[in-house]
Amino acid sequence: MLPYIAEFLGTMMLIILGDGVVANVNLNKSGMKGAGAVQITLAWGLAVLVPAFIFGEASGASFNPALTIALAVDGSFAWSMVPGYVIAQLAGAFVGASIVYLLFKGQFDATEDPGTKLGVFCTGPSIPNTGLNILSEAVGTFILVFAIKGIGNVTGLSTGVDKLFVFGIIVSVGMSLGGLTGYAINPARDLGPRLAHAVLPIKGKGDSNFSYGLVVPIVGPIIGAIVAVLLYGAIPW
Amino acid sequence: MLPYIAEFLGTMMLIILGDGVVANVNLNKSGMKGAGAVQITLAWGLAVLVPAFIFGEASGASFNPALTIALAVDGSFAWSMVPGYVIAQLAGAFVGASIVYLLFKGQFDATEDPGTKLGVFCTGPSIPNTGLNILSEAVGTFILVFAIKGIGNVTGLSTGVDKLFVFGIIVSVGMSLGGLTGYAINPARDLGPRLAHAVLPIKGKGDSNFSYGLVVPIVGPIIGAIVAVLLYGAIPW
Amino acid sequence: MLPYIAEFLGTMMLIILGDGVVANVNLNKSGMKGAGAVQITLAWGLAVLVPAFIFGEASGASFNPALTIALAVDGSFAWSMVPGYVIAQLAGAFVGASIVYLLFKGQFDATEDPGTKLGVFCTGPSIPNTGLNILSEAVGTFILVFAIKGIGNVTGLSTGVDKLFVFGIIVSVGMSLGGLTGYAINPARDLGPRLAHAVLPIKGKGDSNFSYGLVVPIVGPIIGAIVAVLLYGAIPW
Amino acid sequence: MLPYIAEFLGTMMLIILGDGVVANVNLNKSGMKGAGAVQITLAWGLAVLVPAFIFGEASGASFNPALTIALAVDGSFAWSMVPGYVIAQLAGAFVGASIVYLLFKGQFDATEDPGTKLGVFCTGPSIPNTGLNILSEAVGTFILVFAIKGIGNVTGLSTGVDKLFVFGIIVSVGMSLGGLTGYAINPARDLGPRLAHAVLPIKGKGDSNFSYGLVVPIVGPIIGAIVAVLLYGAIPW
Repeated sequence: MLPYIAEFLGTMMLIILGDGVVANVNLNKSGMKGAGAVQITLAWGLAVLVPAFIFGEASGASFNPALTIALAVDGSFAWSMVPGYVIAQLAGAFVGASIVYLLFKGQFDATEDPGTKLGVFCTGPSIPNTGLNILSEAVGTFILVFAIKGIGNVTGLSTGVDKLFVFGIIVSVGMSLGGLTGYAINPARDLGPRLAHAVLPIKGKGDSNFSYGLVVPIVGPIIGAIVAVLLYGAIPW
Repeated sequence: MLPYIAEFLGTMMLIILGDGVVANVNLNKSGMKGAGAVQITLAWGLAVLVPAFIFGEASGASFNPALTIALAVDGSFAWSMVPGYVIAQLAGAFVGASIVYLLFKGQFDATEDPGTKLGVFCTGPSIPNTGLNILSEAVGTFILVFAIKGIGNVTGLSTGVDKLFVFGIIVSVGMSLGGLTGYAINPARDLGPRLAHAVLPIKGKGDSNFSYGLVVPIVGPIIGAIVAVLLYGAIPW
Repeated sequence: MLPYIAEFLGTMMLIILGDGVVANVNLNKSGMKGAGAVQITLAWGLAVLVPAFIFGEASGASFNPALTIALAVDGSFAWSMVPGYVIAQLAGAFVGASIVYLLFKGQFDATEDPGTKLGVFCTGPSIPNTGLNILSEAVGTFILVFAIKGIGNVTGLSTGVDKLFVFGIIVSVGMSLGGLTGYAINPARDLGPRLAHAVLPIKGKGDSNFSYGLVVPIVGPIIGAIVAVLLYGAIPW
Repeated sequence: MLPYIAEFLGTMMLIILGDGVVANVNLNKSGMKGAGAVQITLAWGLAVLVPAFIFGEASGASFNPALTIALAVDGSFAWSMVPGYVIAQLAGAFVGASIVYLLFKGQFDATEDPGTKLGVFCTGPSIPNTGLNILSEAVGTFILVFAIKGIGNVTGLSTGVDKLFVFGIIVSVGMSLGGLTGYAINPARDLGPRLAHAVLPIKGKGDSNFSYGLVVPIVGPIIGAIVAVLLYGAIPW
């Protein structure tokens, strides 16, 4: 039971801190409004780092269905545990986003633009283009998963420093490619909060944009993650 | 005696560096005025990191009554030492804030807004709401204390890297949730400097807002910290 | 064959992430437009860090003809492998830049200034002056290569922390000297993407400025790197 | 001879990177003009980190007469080597600043304000007040030296992570107190470049302000450093 609890709590914490920074930086009446992309990308990296070292030994700290599925494809994670992991990740992301909404209730109420509110919960493209948007998510997730495979093979890597590398990967993908689609690179990170956006009684909210959300941030990351483990496995290390 | 000295000096250094960055970035005629939230949040993380590695072995480097109390609730710190620790932390924070005032005397004098001056010393809410403000402080402190418990259980973690994780936690909470209440997440960090603000002969200062300061940044962190150790202890690691 | 594959893939990843951040921050309609030099310099450091830990054991993670040549001059890398490495690096940089173009196709189309487009691919001087520009690239590369030599000689350095140092060097050179010529400090990083700029059907593109690109970012780095290994070798450590 | 060479080269590199970032961010026609205090403070931390790991074993990587003198007072460094170290540090700083001038010659020529030019080389107070300015430099250097003493006593600290801590200390002092006097916290870092400013044929330069430079950034750091080792030694660790 522990791995599922860990994935639930870890993904919840990921979203509290990750959706949290978007709220913190973008909503009106937040004391840090306007802090910009450097804060958002660094904080998303930390949002992964913090639960990763807490829950790494308990569950492997995936927090990401695309990564979980790819590791199963790769043979390094049991297929039988995939459904439970994905459910725990989605549930954790949903609860985490709900907590962010509760904490920033006043700031949400003080913000008019429905797109800004939706942007706290989940991702969207700067230029809508289904093919390129999927490619963008696939490339970002490819780098994430390929690099995670690579960390696992560094000889003699100090415990702890591996987690700092994961932080670096997330910040790297965000800073370098994040302006394309908001770098979901994780179906649970996007869908869980999007469901919360749809369900919660947010004042003046707009559409939850499931026509995008059920395609790009799910299909792109899963493709990218699977290609990453296959290519990684094909290299004669 | 050493642990109490270490808590006093460490908390003093925490506040010199922590209140220091707020003065450095927000007061008129500071050479770094306007550097923004990225600098404030990174520097508060460093303000914890620096005394943490200096005083970690001497006292455990708590510097935070909520953490100290929670570790006592948890059974990993002696209740008999709690009062002395809390007094040392409050005294250190008071002295640290007084040093910041002395160093930035000219900048304080050049700044008109009483709220900006108070903001160098202690925290306040971006939207006043006692319930949500307490919740905000509780959630931030929950993450801090839960993560500190987690660091202690990472197998084989290199000495030193644990401190880098603590830095990461502080920056994470600040970047993601700091715009709500200024993330005291530590009753001494708030009350010590607030007392200094009340006592010091600051030109043109306003109210020290004890009606907020005696409630939110004390109750919230203590609740969050205790919930964190209880939940952490309830998980079947 | 593995080292060449690793240099190709690693340099490709370097340029996806490195040219990526410039596109992400400077092109119109990117969600992170305007994030500034802190994001660009941190992300270039990560663009080296990520492939460095993935491919470090496979190829030494040079990704840089100037470094590769200097290590051969130094006697710590086989001259016979230099041509293959340089070709792999140039090819990887070319492919990486092409992927960035594909990903940011819409953002390129939405950006009018040809100089901004060229600046995503390769470097240019803030003040054209062949002598000083070569010196700038030579000094930056000198620091890079001298410091890499230095890392190799730190006794008892933890695996992984060496890579964090490399990240630090890249960020340092960028933050301190990057405004002079855009710190190519790597002929492949500049020439591969410049060739991609010349070849790709980019809407409204301008000149690829080979008169600069075939001189400064090639000659400067190679001189700086060779001087670094020679000086390093001359010091009686 | 090696330790003196190392102090010379290390301090030269410190100033190339440290004065470099100020030029890079503040001079007209630099490609990174306006990047702000976050870049300056991070880059000064890296400016210490990079030579620190290169030259740490050769000389202890002091690069700072106040630290060198304090370690001699402390009994952990030979008094007989102090004069040679201080001369090497000053000479390295002078040469480093001259290289920065050469590299940024065009940018210096394009910048009118003499104060901005002087600010690339050396420090100055945001509010002139000899007593408080000395105190500011003393407090910053106290934290630096006290923390360096602390690093030396962390049991089992991984090699390399100690250098990351030094980076953290420099960034911390800069971000938290740098707006007061520009945080020289090192007499050589200030005096060497100030002498270069006085000697070099800089177009449109103003006064080198030795009446400040021969007092505050020399007296303050030395007092702070000595108090730090004395207090550190007085604590019953």
